[in-house]
This record gives sequence, C-alpha cells and structure tokens, in this order.
Amino acid sequence: MRITLLTDFGSADGYVAAMKGAIAEIAPSALIDDASHDIAPGNIMAGAFALRRYWRMYPEGTVHVVVIDPGVGSVRRALLVEADGRFLVGPDNGVFTFALRDAARTRCFEITNQAVLRKTISHTFHGRDIFASVAGHIAMGEAIETVGSAIANPVLINLPPAIATASSVRGEVVHIDRFGNLITNISRDLLQPGQVVRLVEREARIVDTYGTAAPGELVALINSDRLLEIAVRDGSAAAALNVVCGVAVELHS
Amino acid sequence: MRITLLTDFGSADGYVAAMKGAIAEIAPSALIDDASHDIAPGNIMAGAFALRRYWRMYPEGTVHVVVIDPGVGSVRRALLVEADGRFLVGPDNGVFTFALRDAARTRCFEITNQAVLRKTISHTFHGRDIFASVAGHIAMGEAIETVGSAIANPVLINLPPAIATASSVRGEVVHIDRFGNLITNISRDLLQPGQVVRLVEREARIVDTYGTAAPGELVALINSDRLLEIAVRDGSAAAALNVVCGVAVELHS
Amino acid sequence: MRITLLTDFGSADGYVAAMKGAIAEIAPSALIDDASHDIAPGNIMAGAFALRRYWRMYPEGTVHVVVIDPGVGSVRRALLVEADGRFLVGPDNGVFTFALRDAARTRCFEITNQAVLRKTISHTFHGRDIFASVAGHIAMGEAIETVGSAIANPVLINLPPAIATASSVRGEVVHIDRFGNLITNISRDLLQPGQVVRLVEREARIVDTYGTAAPGELVALINSDRLLEIAVRDGSAAAALNVVCGVAVELHS
Repeated sequence: MRITLLTDFGSADGYVAAMKGAIAEIAPSALIDDASHDIAPGNIMAGAFALRRYWRMYPEGTVHVVVIDPGVGSVRRALLVEADGRFLVGPDNGVFTFALRDAARTRCFEITNQAVLRKTISHTFHGRDIFASVAGHIAMGEAIETVGSAIANPVLINLPPAIATASSVRGEVVHIDRFGNLITNISRDLLQPGQVVRLVEREARIVDTYGTAAPGELVALINSDRLLEIAVRDGSAAAALNVVCGVAVELHS
Repeated sequence: MRITLLTDFGSADGYVAAMKGAIAEIAPSALIDDASHDIAPGNIMAGAFALRRYWRMYPEGTVHVVVIDPGVGSVRRALLVEADGRFLVGPDNGVFTFALRDAARTRCFEITNQAVLRKTISHTFHGRDIFASVAGHIAMGEAIETVGSAIANPVLINLPPAIATASSVRGEVVHIDRFGNLITNISRDLLQPGQVVRLVEREARIVDTYGTAAPGELVALINSDRLLEIAVRDGSAAAALNVVCGVAVELHS
Repeated sequence: MRITLLTDFGSADGYVAAMKGAIAEIAPSALIDDASHDIAPGNIMAGAFALRRYWRMYPEGTVHVVVIDPGVGSVRRALLVEADGRFLVGPDNGVFTFALRDAARTRCFEITNQAVLRKTISHTFHGRDIFASVAGHIAMGEAIETVGSAIANPVLINLPPAIATASSVRGEVVHIDRFGNLITNISRDLLQPGQVVRLVEREARIVDTYGTAAPGELVALINSDRLLEIAVRDGSAAAALNVVCGVAVELHS
C-alpha cells in the first residue's frame, strides 16, 4: 500500500517525520511518498490546487494525507473521503474541494472513532495523532465506515467562476506556480479559435506549447489541468507583470 | 526495514541521493524516508530538536541516519546508538542528545570496523561513506556490536535548564520553528494553574489550543513535545516580537 | 525496483506527486526516492552535476528520472539511456553528460513508442506523460529496445577544460553548492605536491579535510567527486569571495 503526504509543515522541524513514524508503526511496510511539505502556511487553496494535480494519478487504494490545517484544535471536523477508489484524509476545511468536484463517486466520513487514533491526541498536532494514524489503519485495510459517521456536507471552497459572453470570457488568476506561471479559472472549453488573452494592459497570444514561444515572450496556453495559463518563455510571468492572485484575465476575439 | 535520513545537505547538490544510493546498494529493498535535508547548515541543536520529534514514533528496528556534521574529517567519532530498539547513526557531536536522554535504554558504539564502511572513505563525505553504509548493514540485520567498541561517553549538548522558584519559572527560547513559534525549555510539569507568560515586555495567556486564540493574539500553550511554546494565531511570534533563540521567557502567577 | 526523481519543479505545485502517481499506476510496488526537486529552474548544468553524484551509487537496475527540461514541447528528443546497468530517462538536452562520460558502457534510445507513454501527452508536462511513464515500464522489466530506436548522438554539454602547463593549471569554478563551496573543473590527477590555489587575488592552501582548517580559513581540497573544491571552514567561500560560476582558478607551485 502507498500513502502520500501533503502538508505546510516544511520538513526541518521534524513534524513530517513524526507523521511518517506514526504511519510506519501501524503500517510497517507502507510506501510513503512525499507530495510536498512546502505549501505556504495555512494556504488551503494552494493545497487544494496541488492535490488536484495528483490524487487521481495514483492507483485506487492509495491513501492521500493532506494537512493544511490552520484551524487545528478548533471545532473543524476531521475527514476521510473515498473518491473514485482513492482515500483522502485531512481537515474538513475545503482542501478536498477539487477532488470532491472532479471525482465521479465520493463518500465522506467524519473521523470520530478513537480506535483509529493515537491514544493521546495533542491539541496542536492532529497531523500525527489523527490523520497519520487513520491513514495507517486505512492502508492496512480497515473499512472506511469504521472511522465514524457518513456526512453529506464537506466544506468546499467557492472558486470565482469565469464569466463567458458571446464575444469574451472574463476570469482571474487563481494560482501562481513556482515558475511564476499564472493559472486562471478559465477552462479549455471556454476558449474559441482566434482569441487572445489580455491582462494588466498586456496581450498574450495563445500557443500550443512553450517551445513555440520566443524567449521572453508572454504567451498563454491550455495547461495539463485543462486551464488557461499565462507564461513567459524562460521567465516568470508573475514577476514580469507584477501580478498576484485575483488579477483579472480576459479572452477576446 | 525502514531507514530515515536527516541532514543539512539540502537536496539540490545530489549528496542526499548519493547516500540513498549507498544504502540501496547494501539494502536493496530498504524503505528510505526523508526526515529533512533543510536543517540549517551545521546547526546541531536544530538537528537534535527535529530528531526528538520523530525517532521514537517509528517502530523498533528503524534506522535513523543523522548527518549534521560540521566536524567531518576531524577527530570526532562516528557513532551507532541503540535506543529503545531503534538505531541512530551519525557523528558524535551532540545531535543525539535528546534521544539519549529520553530513551529508557541505550547502548553506544564507536564505528571503527572497516567491513561496514565503503571501501574508500572520502575526507568530506562521511554521510555516504560511513553513515549510509553502516545504516544499510544494520538494516540488513548486522549485529550492532560488529561496528566497533562500546563507549560510555557520547557527546551531549547542555541545554540551559529552566529555573523554578515558588512563584515563577525562568527559561528561554531554545528553538524557533517554521511557523515562527517559539519553543522554550520550560516543560509542562513546571506550569501551575493561573500563570501567564512574559517575554520582551509582552504577556501571553496560556491556552489549550491555537483554535481558542483570537486571530493575531499572542498565546502560549503546551506543545506536542510537552514544552511551553509561544505563538501568534495565524502569524509568526518570532516576527511579531522580533526575537531570536536565547530570549528570556518567564512564567508568573 | 527503485526509481529516483530529479527535477526543477519544486514540490509545492503537485507536479512531482503527479509523476509519482503516474509511476505507481504502472509499477505499484516501486520504491520512489526523491533525489531533488530544487534544481534551479532550467539549469541543465546543475542537474547534470547533481546526477553525477548519485547515479552510479545506486545498484544496477535502478531507474533515474531527470526532468530539467526548459525545452518541453519543442523538438528536443526524449531519451532513455542504459549506463553501466542503470537506466536514465529524461530530455535529450545534455543533462546526462557526466553520466554518459563516466560510464564504461552506454546505450541511448530515442523514446518514440506510444505504448510506453500515457495515452494523452500534454504539451507542458512530459515529466508525467513521457518520462514517468517510461520509468514505470522499465522498472517493470520492459526491454529498453521497446521504447524506440537506438541513437548515437545524445546531446552533451561542453565543460570548459582545465589547462595544465609544466608549472601551473588554469581552470574555473563550474558549480557552487548549497554550502557556498566552489567546485572547479580541475581534477585530482592535475594536482602536484606543494601547490597552492589562487582565485580573485586570494590564496588557499590545499588540505586533506575541512577539519584541519582553522575556522574561517579559505582552503582547497579534493572533494568526493575527485575535483578541486574551494571552501571556507564553517562558512561560505562563494559569499566570502563574492564569486560566481566561471571565475578563474589557478594552481601554482
């Protein structure tokens, strides 16, 4: 069995390793893959975007642990989701939004059964005491119904929708990746032939691949998530345009 | 068998991967978990704190490799420790201090037997040539007595003790984590009901969990290591108070 | 079977995890080791240097995936190399230069067979759709000839050679590691007894190990790659001398 970990802990403090140890104690032969521990602290949206890229790439039976959890110790629920045969474990704060939306088939459970938790639950480290422990038990074949009651209302992030008219589409930058590429909320099906992209008084032509852009050129393309993405060839669009998340992006003929 | 790695190498230079390869050559099916490679270069105290968080979370038989080794190539000894059934491999420079203190049962050996090392030992890369090699052999079931002679005097870091009087406790910040939380040397048993925390002319109330603090509030709590920790809800206490390790912290009624 | 991953993706965007998932779907029990994901974006030389440190430390049969790929989506070829029994998968842009040079025995194939790729190939993410997929198939025992045709002219980086005369050797800094150590293109066999190193009007004595240097002293030594390296004991030579890659280094009697 294979378990992935996505957190905002960084690795240097040893918290991630403590989660791995808690998993290994329950599931000694589990393969543990780091997804990332470099999500910006508390940035649930960034975690949801990262998770979106990989949760369904893994085969059925994989357990994905996600701990971006600014509300640790408060009343937010602990969640186990089964989505298209993969398992997602983490806080009920919206971090599973895209997985819940993209899956064909989902079931959600609130984690309450103390038998699948560590004996002592700290106030500050549910990643280890709740989520890693549950992941270990699920990886060992524990039935998902064991963890607690089914729920129907997991928390979801409301992404701003892109707005399409006959002649244009208006969306915004919702995420900026490590390369400074700007990911928008405009999906592939909204794009029409011959359109160009406008943002902050700049125009970008739409290309099939970065390779066909000139060095330094501002271009847009449909990325591997099927979303419109704006990039500077061999550079950072975020730095070149000095933009942050939320900046308006328009598609025009 | 499972082996964890904690270093200050970063990953980008390929040194960590060279250690993993040296392990895999000896123990081809070993599960290798990264603890962290982002310990500040040469910061033995930070390594000791990180290791403290996870070494005993892993099941018995786990091999923990720790290479924060500013004295590589000098006369410092190479160490193998058995602590409560887990194995610790690394330089004898204090990085195992908390593990040695917290374990119920420890045995220490100086690594000298060339049969458990790589054939050629470089002057600069004992992480690969000594520690990874020994870890591979121990994971494969080599008896720990094989590596060299038992020793009774491993190097220990002397942490400044917290000083308790009838009405107060005086300690200090000994570590700052990625979130800017201030970890002190004041342990849970020194805390009395009704006390507050003072540092740099600020006061922090003691709460059970971050979730009960107001956003931006300075609070203190007992963390998952059972140490008093000072935090700003949804922020960085280190940045807000502009403090570094060594700053005085007091508990008052 | 064991697969390593070296990329310039960082981890926070979830691209690396998507590659791991694509591998796990094909090779469910593969051990996946992170080499690094912190190579500077697009820095093929840094990737080649990192790979050099570990590719042959791993046992035969290991699959090393390397995705530093600024030309993704352009006409550059996709490559599978068999080098001394290890497999290297990645773009044909020079990132395998040192491995190809140092191996006793190599075979190169251009990856063209769609049966070993993902069904849909995105324009921007060959790391997942081509390289991870091929790695999974090779790890599962697929014959390397299956991926496409043998080629004889993989792209190689031309490193500036060090120039030796009767009394001196002139080389340059070709890489700077995380500790600020300066790695040169001067190999061990060019070094003669009694020589000293000169760069930017400073002199460095040649020592056997960092441990014999005084704190803060500028020294040179032969590193574990058998290259002349210049370092400041307990400090950063790059910061102390304010140098970048390309700076001249001379060996004099």
